[in-house]
Amino acid sequence: MRQAGRYMPEYRKLREQHSILDLCHTPELAAQVTLQPVERLGVDAAILFADILLPFEPLGLGLSFAAGEGPHIANAISRQVDVERLPVVNPDTDLAYVLEAVRLARAALPADIPLIGFAGAPFTLASYAIEGGSTRTFTKTKTLMYQVPDTWHLLLGKLADLVGAYLTAQARAGAQALQLFDSWVGCLSPQDYRTYVLPHSRRALALASEAGVPVIHFGTGTAAFLEDFAGAGGDVLGVDWRIPLDEAWRRSGESRAIQGNLDPAALLAPAAARDAQVRDILARAGGRPGHIFNLGHGVLPETDVGAVRAVVDLVHGG
Amino acid sequence: MRQAGRYMPEYRKLREQHSILDLCHTPELAAQVTLQPVERLGVDAAILFADILLPFEPLGLGLSFAAGEGPHIANAISRQVDVERLPVVNPDTDLAYVLEAVRLARAALPADIPLIGFAGAPFTLASYAIEGGSTRTFTKTKTLMYQVPDTWHLLLGKLADLVGAYLTAQARAGAQALQLFDSWVGCLSPQDYRTYVLPHSRRALALASEAGVPVIHFGTGTAAFLEDFAGAGGDVLGVDWRIPLDEAWRRSGESRAIQGNLDPAALLAPAAARDAQVRDILARAGGRPGHIFNLGHGVLPETDVGAVRAVVDLVHGG
Repeated sequence: MRQAGRYMPEYRKLREQHSILDLCHTPELAAQVTLQPVERLGVDAAILFADILLPFEPLGLGLSFAAGEGPHIANAISRQVDVERLPVVNPDTDLAYVLEAVRLARAALPADIPLIGFAGAPFTLASYAIEGGSTRTFTKTKTLMYQVPDTWHLLLGKLADLVGAYLTAQARAGAQALQLFDSWVGCLSPQDYRTYVLPHSRRALALASEAGVPVIHFGTGTAAFLEDFAGAGGDVLGVDWRIPLDEAWRRSGESRAIQGNLDPAALLAPAAARDAQVRDILARAGGRPGHIFNLGHGVLPETDVGAVRAVVDLVHGG
Repeated sequence: MRQAGRYMPEYRKLREQHSILDLCHTPELAAQVTLQPVERLGVDAAILFADILLPFEPLGLGLSFAAGEGPHIANAISRQVDVERLPVVNPDTDLAYVLEAVRLARAALPADIPLIGFAGAPFTLASYAIEGGSTRTFTKTKTLMYQVPDTWHLLLGKLADLVGAYLTAQARAGAQALQLFDSWVGCLSPQDYRTYVLPHSRRALALASEAGVPVIHFGTGTAAFLEDFAGAGGDVLGVDWRIPLDEAWRRSGESRAIQGNLDPAALLAPAAARDAQVRDILARAGGRPGHIFNLGHGVLPETDVGAVRAVVDLVHGG
């Protein structure tokens, strides 16, 4: 999960001077933010500071963030021609600033702290591109998916290619693991996931795997189609807190590694209740080396940094 | 699910003159709206037109709806004293207008069309009371739940009692079935559902069952703890589209009836794709009498009335 954020004083201080997009666009700042949680929390890996929607800029979709609001996509996709005219993005030139942030962060990180690159999955990216921003119902997304499946598959195919190229470019720039975020895929029925999303996620993951580094496939609300979600590919399955870790691991195949799955809200609990949840996850993982302890989604802005640090220490056996 | 709504021209016409709360507060209008879908759609049952948050008015929490926005709770709950001072609600007097709407709707409905009453489940009501409105992350809700579990359980216990009394009052007024809506319970981990919610849902459902009419227990995102959710009580399990109907039925026990589970977005699909989804659900139900065909959540405002009518006709064997 993104580890930096508004819950950290050093991040808030930077944000007083710079917008989110400013931070992302300035490799020195993005690398600096990437390092903050390593220094402050003692985590075992760093994840690049970026936003999954950055590729929308070279796609010509127009991306902005209003203060305190979610993203706004100026040129949302609604027709076949919108998809046809999407340019092919070359990450090496069109998202060079992200790759430079990867290089700077990698160079600045301790040698024993791997750097994780990431991208949004085709479905989650498509939902933002079609809705024009955040949504609770995914009405426009599903309408396009059902009404014009050819347009849908053309869009998701293009996004899968983009994401595959973007992730491998991040690996070439120094990322030692890659994560594909399908944050909103849990709004779909199992059948719709299989029909409209799985082939494109499979393609994106296959392309990313060509980079030769471990690939993490993360989604929320995937309990009802976990076998299919895990079957899409990747070396590590990332699950949210809505399914017990041992059950998720058993259902997805224990040969695959697993990442998760503390409810970010557990970091708002008193220490005893929070630590009980952490210990429950560790017990379900049973000490097996294929478990990567993590939150089930991003750190909530209301979180106290001390609580995050305490969880890291507890997982480290403190 | 609520069957009336912005997707119906006759409802939109009434809303030009009256706010949502006006409609709810005026039994003649609420009854009129309750009947609209029966006349227009040919459904086999009517569900009362009301809002799950109406009990917040006699609770003194302050309820309003801004145009195009979700609900706003003026006096949101954050402390033990807020819960302690909640008055005991007597539905017969404090929500008399709802019961009058039940009586009027029952009297106006054809004899062979049962009327369903409903209430919000303790968790879903508590989430609105604590957040002060809609939320994506349930941060305040979970913070209170974890930080002050005594306050949490006191609140949910009071809400369970209220909901039980409210539902049985609706049955006395003429409702022939009752539905408990736990719309947002899917934000919880299975363990947190068991610890913080299940006992209160069980109590509310047990109280409602004393009315002697069938009780439907509905939730969304319940796939990961369906056995516990179904085990809370009720005669009918209501599930959303995120789990195949046959799997949900098998896991929850086939002696229980089941309601569901078309994705409301399927009503935005072309007829062939929509009908394929309807037929798939009917096939999974296998013609067993314990299946109540329904959407997995409410009708989306963008829906065409003709599409809803077509689904009703298809389910009726047309």
